[in-house]
Amino acid sequence: MKALVVDPPGRISLREVPVPPLAHGECRVALRMAGICRTDLELVKGYMEFSGIPGHEFVGDVVEGPQRLVGRRVVGEINAGCGECEECRSNQSRHCARRTVLGIYKRPGAFAEFLALPERTLIAVPDNVSDEEAVFTEPLAAALEIFEQIHIPPASRVLAVGDGKLGLLIAQVFAHFGSRVTLVGRNPKKLALAERWGVETFCNEPRPQGSGSKNFPTRFDHIVECSGSPDGLAYALKHIAPRGTLVLKSTYSPSAAPAIDWAKIVVDEIRLVGSRCGRFAPALRLLARGAIDVRSMIDHRTTLAQGMEAFELAARKGVLKVVMTM
Amino acid sequence: MKALVVDPPGRISLREVPVPPLAHGECRVALRMAGICRTDLELVKGYMEFSGIPGHEFVGDVVEGPQRLVGRRVVGEINAGCGECEECRSNQSRHCARRTVLGIYKRPGAFAEFLALPERTLIAVPDNVSDEEAVFTEPLAAALEIFEQIHIPPASRVLAVGDGKLGLLIAQVFAHFGSRVTLVGRNPKKLALAERWGVETFCNEPRPQGSGSKNFPTRFDHIVECSGSPDGLAYALKHIAPRGTLVLKSTYSPSAAPAIDWAKIVVDEIRLVGSRCGRFAPALRLLARGAIDVRSMIDHRTTLAQGMEAFELAARKGVLKVVMTM
Repeated sequence: MKALVVDPPGRISLREVPVPPLAHGECRVALRMAGICRTDLELVKGYMEFSGIPGHEFVGDVVEGPQRLVGRRVVGEINAGCGECEECRSNQSRHCARRTVLGIYKRPGAFAEFLALPERTLIAVPDNVSDEEAVFTEPLAAALEIFEQIHIPPASRVLAVGDGKLGLLIAQVFAHFGSRVTLVGRNPKKLALAERWGVETFCNEPRPQGSGSKNFPTRFDHIVECSGSPDGLAYALKHIAPRGTLVLKSTYSPSAAPAIDWAKIVVDEIRLVGSRCGRFAPALRLLARGAIDVRSMIDHRTTLAQGMEAFELAARKGVLKVVMTM
Repeated sequence: MKALVVDPPGRISLREVPVPPLAHGECRVALRMAGICRTDLELVKGYMEFSGIPGHEFVGDVVEGPQRLVGRRVVGEINAGCGECEECRSNQSRHCARRTVLGIYKRPGAFAEFLALPERTLIAVPDNVSDEEAVFTEPLAAALEIFEQIHIPPASRVLAVGDGKLGLLIAQVFAHFGSRVTLVGRNPKKLALAERWGVETFCNEPRPQGSGSKNFPTRFDHIVECSGSPDGLAYALKHIAPRGTLVLKSTYSPSAAPAIDWAKIVVDEIRLVGSRCGRFAPALRLLARGAIDVRSMIDHRTTLAQGMEAFELAARKGVLKVVMTM
């Protein structure tokens, strides 16, 4: 089959490779569409010393597997647990110590004609959810994971730090839930998109745009840091209120991390909550309701054959989602 | 009046000083007894560039103030808020941006014959609580603060890191609530005290003592870091389970903080909860029940006149609480 393959460090190429074999309990999925995520760009640059086929945002058709799934259009949770440990038995395969992660860790990914995933990770896509919407199930689930972890009442005032794809999605989800949410970012085009969703925005510094409010808070009880940059963490810590909750979505290498004032975290009784992957079912339900606008985030539609160009496009400053059809 | 006074850096002396004046709404308290806390030792060493009278663990008699309090034996919450801001109005004076803190920030402390505190911070001590018990109200409230902030079911398995005074108290409180709690420390004498309270202990490395269990966990869902040392934070992060909650009680200067693997916090969805001062009423209720053994933690009984010697004793390795009567 054709696939995009990363050879460390920093090289990606379109190649002919063997179709991944199926382990016991796994299904073969023929890819329809896959989206490029920031993590994919990092993997190509050498994150996790990755080699192999990246890609974890996908929609495809089951071509081999149990009767109930063959022929179904599916998305799939990217963490494949061992199925036997305490985490897996308590429905927390995402934290299985022996897990593989699609296109990230020990499992070939979605920028290919076929992939293999355990049956239990796959979930059928409702007919009224298009491929271009379904491909956002994984990042939307990551946004919803925040609400699985902590209680954020709809009356909350929320700050989202970072106007990347995840930041935009998170801000939109907060707006959908009725919260008053402000997105801070650096790209006027992205911030304008967020404003269409009822999100307040400000560029770079906490100044309200449009609203003209003089009561713009300098401190927030709820902040989500999703900038992907260590600067974002420092910014979030500066603006978190005493007893506030700061959700951490960005990963940094220890060397890139900012110096943290731990005394402030203790004295102000701040909560930091690491947050990663979420569950697919509620994300698909919201997409099926048409509640979340994801298609506006697609900047480029490409094909697997144009995969290298697609990665170049995705790496450009200001570009949101790049998807490829297979 | 006589008082212990810190002159930066690193000098403490017993001196004759003016009695602190009373601001509107404040009471004058004649000290009976005060306890030396690790923070006091840090203040003498230059923490917060402190100068003045330290001391915030106390019990005393109200000698000037409203009728209902004069003559009463009291303890007092150490954070004195402005009484007007949003935090103060929502009963969170501990986070008032304009607060003073007894013996720590802009308010003369308890190693003296008299102190002044707002009436609203004082709480009468039940007759069956001795001075030697009442002087532990503040650190016991700090231990209970954990339970005000997060829900830790009694069935939890808990690790407390650090066998200092606060660590011992926290471990004892968890045991009191029915949790299975393990205290890791370095001092066999302190660990033996904890074992008397039904706390499992291990010295230095996570090896069970006495229990002979082969199923000793290397990861905990709930960890309280109260070692006062950056090493303790690194140790706690090493042993926290995915989706676990790590309560932070120790303050560090940014330069002393360990390098943090932020990616692990995000990927494992760890929660970090800064925790500081607590409420006095529940702490006094537990002391009045005789539920918490605090007197076993008193290593030396001294007087204000012996204050400099008391500080020397408190700074010695392995010494627990040093109290002084006035």
